[in-house]
Amino acid sequence: MSGRLIAVINPNTTVSMTRTVVEAATAVAGPLTELIGITPLVGPATVETNADEVAGASAVLREIIHAENGPVTPDGYVIACFGDTGLAAAKESARGPVVGMTQAALMTAALVAEHFCIITMPRRTLAMSQRVVRDLGLEHRCTVRAVDEDVAAVADGSLHLLEQFLMQASAAVDDDHSEAIILGCAGLADLLVPLREALGVPVIEGVAAAVGQVEALLAQGLSTSRANTFAPVPSTTRFPR
Amino acid sequence: MSGRLIAVINPNTTVSMTRTVVEAATAVAGPLTELIGITPLVGPATVETNADEVAGASAVLREIIHAENGPVTPDGYVIACFGDTGLAAAKESARGPVVGMTQAALMTAALVAEHFCIITMPRRTLAMSQRVVRDLGLEHRCTVRAVDEDVAAVADGSLHLLEQFLMQASAAVDDDHSEAIILGCAGLADLLVPLREALGVPVIEGVAAAVGQVEALLAQGLSTSRANTFAPVPSTTRFPR
Amino acid sequence: MSGRLIAVINPNTTVSMTRTVVEAATAVAGPLTELIGITPLVGPATVETNADEVAGASAVLREIIHAENGPVTPDGYVIACFGDTGLAAAKESARGPVVGMTQAALMTAALVAEHFCIITMPRRTLAMSQRVVRDLGLEHRCTVRAVDEDVAAVADGSLHLLEQFLMQASAAVDDDHSEAIILGCAGLADLLVPLREALGVPVIEGVAAAVGQVEALLAQGLSTSRANTFAPVPSTTRFPR
Amino acid sequence: MSGRLIAVINPNTTVSMTRTVVEAATAVAGPLTELIGITPLVGPATVETNADEVAGASAVLREIIHAENGPVTPDGYVIACFGDTGLAAAKESARGPVVGMTQAALMTAALVAEHFCIITMPRRTLAMSQRVVRDLGLEHRCTVRAVDEDVAAVADGSLHLLEQFLMQASAAVDDDHSEAIILGCAGLADLLVPLREALGVPVIEGVAAAVGQVEALLAQGLSTSRANTFAPVPSTTRFPR
Amino acid sequence: MSGRLIAVINPNTTVSMTRTVVEAATAVAGPLTELIGITPLVGPATVETNADEVAGASAVLREIIHAENGPVTPDGYVIACFGDTGLAAAKESARGPVVGMTQAALMTAALVAEHFCIITMPRRTLAMSQRVVRDLGLEHRCTVRAVDEDVAAVADGSLHLLEQFLMQASAAVDDDHSEAIILGCAGLADLLVPLREALGVPVIEGVAAAVGQVEALLAQGLSTSRANTFAPVPSTTRFPR
Amino acid sequence: MSGRLIAVINPNTTVSMTRTVVEAATAVAGPLTELIGITPLVGPATVETNADEVAGASAVLREIIHAENGPVTPDGYVIACFGDTGLAAAKESARGPVVGMTQAALMTAALVAEHFCIITMPRRTLAMSQRVVRDLGLEHRCTVRAVDEDVAAVADGSLHLLEQFLMQASAAVDDDHSEAIILGCAGLADLLVPLREALGVPVIEGVAAAVGQVEALLAQGLSTSRANTFAPVPSTTRFPR
Repeated sequence: MSGRLIAVINPNTTVSMTRTVVEAATAVAGPLTELIGITPLVGPATVETNADEVAGASAVLREIIHAENGPVTPDGYVIACFGDTGLAAAKESARGPVVGMTQAALMTAALVAEHFCIITMPRRTLAMSQRVVRDLGLEHRCTVRAVDEDVAAVADGSLHLLEQFLMQASAAVDDDHSEAIILGCAGLADLLVPLREALGVPVIEGVAAAVGQVEALLAQGLSTSRANTFAPVPSTTRFPR
Repeated sequence: MSGRLIAVINPNTTVSMTRTVVEAATAVAGPLTELIGITPLVGPATVETNADEVAGASAVLREIIHAENGPVTPDGYVIACFGDTGLAAAKESARGPVVGMTQAALMTAALVAEHFCIITMPRRTLAMSQRVVRDLGLEHRCTVRAVDEDVAAVADGSLHLLEQFLMQASAAVDDDHSEAIILGCAGLADLLVPLREALGVPVIEGVAAAVGQVEALLAQGLSTSRANTFAPVPSTTRFPR
Repeated sequence: MSGRLIAVINPNTTVSMTRTVVEAATAVAGPLTELIGITPLVGPATVETNADEVAGASAVLREIIHAENGPVTPDGYVIACFGDTGLAAAKESARGPVVGMTQAALMTAALVAEHFCIITMPRRTLAMSQRVVRDLGLEHRCTVRAVDEDVAAVADGSLHLLEQFLMQASAAVDDDHSEAIILGCAGLADLLVPLREALGVPVIEGVAAAVGQVEALLAQGLSTSRANTFAPVPSTTRFPR
Repeated sequence: MSGRLIAVINPNTTVSMTRTVVEAATAVAGPLTELIGITPLVGPATVETNADEVAGASAVLREIIHAENGPVTPDGYVIACFGDTGLAAAKESARGPVVGMTQAALMTAALVAEHFCIITMPRRTLAMSQRVVRDLGLEHRCTVRAVDEDVAAVADGSLHLLEQFLMQASAAVDDDHSEAIILGCAGLADLLVPLREALGVPVIEGVAAAVGQVEALLAQGLSTSRANTFAPVPSTTRFPR
Repeated sequence: MSGRLIAVINPNTTVSMTRTVVEAATAVAGPLTELIGITPLVGPATVETNADEVAGASAVLREIIHAENGPVTPDGYVIACFGDTGLAAAKESARGPVVGMTQAALMTAALVAEHFCIITMPRRTLAMSQRVVRDLGLEHRCTVRAVDEDVAAVADGSLHLLEQFLMQASAAVDDDHSEAIILGCAGLADLLVPLREALGVPVIEGVAAAVGQVEALLAQGLSTSRANTFAPVPSTTRFPR
Repeated sequence: MSGRLIAVINPNTTVSMTRTVVEAATAVAGPLTELIGITPLVGPATVETNADEVAGASAVLREIIHAENGPVTPDGYVIACFGDTGLAAAKESARGPVVGMTQAALMTAALVAEHFCIITMPRRTLAMSQRVVRDLGLEHRCTVRAVDEDVAAVADGSLHLLEQFLMQASAAVDDDHSEAIILGCAGLADLLVPLREALGVPVIEGVAAAVGQVEALLAQGLSTSRANTFAPVPSTTRFPR
């Protein structure tokens, strides 16, 4: 079995966030996996608004098409932004599998807990998380709470938000009967250990979870179905236009 | 009561489609309403793939921001593409209300029928329609069927597809107990009358439905809530970036 | 385009409530619309109990049949009671479209907000609101709260209930993440402006919303489907019997 | 333990149907139960349209109030019409428990089968059945099919419809994986035995099922909760008005 | 009509609990019903963990097979453990109907209240209750709360837990709009009267409810469908193996 | 990073099936993973009936407790039976993570396809598959079809069933818009390649999928939450008892 290259695409242009998430994910990647981070040159600084989502989706798609046409095509991709920005178009355009960090985190939580809670950030992104939860049908097992800070606040680390996350996570455990916590933003990996220790329940970081999912799909020889929704784009269509 | 200007945004660059939908919608607009069509200069030729959706959402957002900063800001907007391309970002960025043709068609159908059916086009867009149906919670009342033709096929009229639409619509009435039919693509307005006559049930064209919804919102003095999901974009963010 | 006559049917016999709702709705009706209010001679004084709903549905149906057989048949109807009393039978019996204020308010809210809240009155009517919410499939976006006052309390205006409504509405915005508020009773129109100003989010009055929906249906040439659920009543059946 | 009186209310005025359903239910009632049939003097001849439902609900409510104020108040009630006409108001107005034949049939089916099917009649009543299914949350286990005959056709027996019911029931077993069949109309009791024999699966008649439910509630000393939705009607309200 | 024998199977080995539940159920059983309690010789002391559920299901199945092959086969069975331990296998293996106390309690509650609440015990069993609620589709009408005490605490009566149950039940009535309360554990029958008196709403004990359901099924001549899910076990299979 | 030991537990006693599934899973396991198969000495020959499920759950739990107390405790477990027999108790009793083949297959399918279909075997197990689908909330994306053959038929390979599986899978692709197929039984791995080639869509084998999920959980340092539903079993409880 030879090695495999997984690209972690950050839909925003903040290089420090890409570096953080790739570092965190590297710790959990398998021995045959090589991870590379991709930061778009053009795109939103962070993804917090619906306009950011549009810009982020364009950035993700542009980088995937670029990578697919490059000399070394990645075997699979992770989208490293909560809300799974641009996921459908990415799946359609990449030859290998593409997994979003939100869906991966939700599946991981569903394997280790009956009920769980996403703590997203900032509050205005609640609906983005809820959309992924509903797309997977997990509303009956997952609540969503928010820490109301800008994503920019975690560009250089998130430990200063520990107390706010702990407050929401404790409320989830006590009031929502949550048995696991999902970190609702890329760039929160340094909260993982302190939250686990303080709460005593699994805490899940979506990029790490997504790397595991891509590895599993590759091991099974699986990629996105081309039957209907993600059928190949006709050659007459080009992006960007 | 003074007049109101409603912009009908076509996410694709096919000018003939914009013209057709605006003409059809004009026939149903109120006496105080002035409709203008907006065709983006840059964007997908048609919206059929997930990549097209990303490109179309960018185009919609770009045109809305342009219009909002222009000399005569529209009072409201209609997104004239089945799937409601770019709707969330558009609502966030426009001062006035924004309504997608898919959601408007579904609401209209729910007012005149217990069960109804979307006939989308081509087949690969089934999931786009289903996403809007599920977002509104109407899965228990709405089925989705497809005519498997490219959107480009209707750039200059859709009457040549009448038989295919009639076949799907008849199956919906007979097998799904559908009591109304939704045309699942902009640019199908010329099928409206022949389908109504052949089927004897309401047939709904979403752009016309959406114009009515925008008019109703404006009459009530309502626009998108700024409380959370569609809060104003911070001034430090710009699009395109 | 000629004028259209829309009848606003109050299922209860309280004339002052009919007058209030018609006045409020007139302010939002289009220039071609003429509104008339219908107050049944026989019926419940207010609709608060399930028995009231039965009596109110009879009243609505009786008035519709009377109007349909009168010299000037309305082009469409609004049912001006939260819970949409008698809606199914009304749709079946009227030639033109019939819209309930509850369904119209919910659709309007869904266009301007991701999450929203009905504040109904009194508390015993919670289930009536929830039934309409579930019929439309909007449970994932709509909560229902109650102010526990009799409907009779608003026969001559509702401003004295402002504080109670404000308390529930604020709780909805803070705790349910509601982004818009629906007034859960006809006869609350004078709360519209003070609540909007105090809350800073859209506040929706269902009769106004329903007038807009009827206008939109008429403009599109649409009425209730006769295919199945609302097929014409066989001529051998008469009401009242 | 003394005897108990259960009234079976037929919302329509067809005396032969009341007689048939009471006879069939008597065969399954317990030794302490006395059944009486109530046929309203005023009401619809059969319940097939939405207008019939309104008229039938009035009839049910009128008969319940009459019985509650009579010399011998029934201990409980069964509503003998598919769709459970007037159920909410009946529960609110009767001191004892009230059970609809549709809800009782669905609960019974859920106890003996994983999936089941209602065969309603005529086709235009599909939505009435679906409303009860959805109210109980059983959409994932119950399909609804129709035999398109008028209810009047079974006023004097239903054996002439056996073949049509058998055709739908067989399709349910084969195509929907149904494991039990619910007779979707009062007055079909004579189909019970031939359908059971032909199909080899449980066939459920709702009036019999509802009698069993009322007996069980009475044995447990339970009646409708007065806490909120079915709180007593204020004495100032009277029906009919 | 001759008598019928209903076996109440306690999945755990605590004889005092069997005695208590049978006594309570006897008070509500019909005059033709004879109840016998079955306590397995081998099985869990109480059912609180998921491992207990497995052991309890084995015990239930073993006792049913034993009873089915005994000299006097019961006409029907009640499973007297919240969570309905072993229900599917029991239905498959018994000739007569089998009803779980949880499903029976939920159906009973749905007949007398719009919204209701299970108070389970201990807290770790929340998911077991929720599974039955979801299996019946009643999530929109039922909440689940917990008193966090071991089941062993009620082996000799539950009155010492009255205050804890009252606190949860009151919160359900006030905050969840619950209109009835379901006792979420076998062996709580002595809480029935004091809770009813304190709360003024129906309080439901599942074993009593289940006896009523079995009686109703027997009266209708119904047992588990053999069509698919509960088809007879092939004779080559034996349990235990 | 050191090696990890994953135990694949076959709930039935058919050794040839254990061997087949372990062989197939080995082909996809990572280089650090060592797989061992566990076949219970006592248990059902195959899992097809509800009684088999009870016996199989006992077998799984017994083997897990045995393994946990053995000299070399596995780092994680896979349950190799469609329906995920005994999963909840297994998660509660094992220190490491436990993943069922059904849930893993569903998550895998949700990553590569919008809609997908389980083909289970035999037909009487439809409800077992549907229970897992509903537990994960994927009803809106997953259909279930059946090939009506006994599990024993595949004890020595499944290629003779290719045509039957192909017929159901083709119907799923054409009629249900399925974009991927899930093999609904352990022991069907040799159908994987011929079905993929014939259908041109992803075909998913659950044991392989589950091994990937356990590897991913282990890489993230995650195991079952002990917060509530899967809290440790009190030491006073033993299994078997």
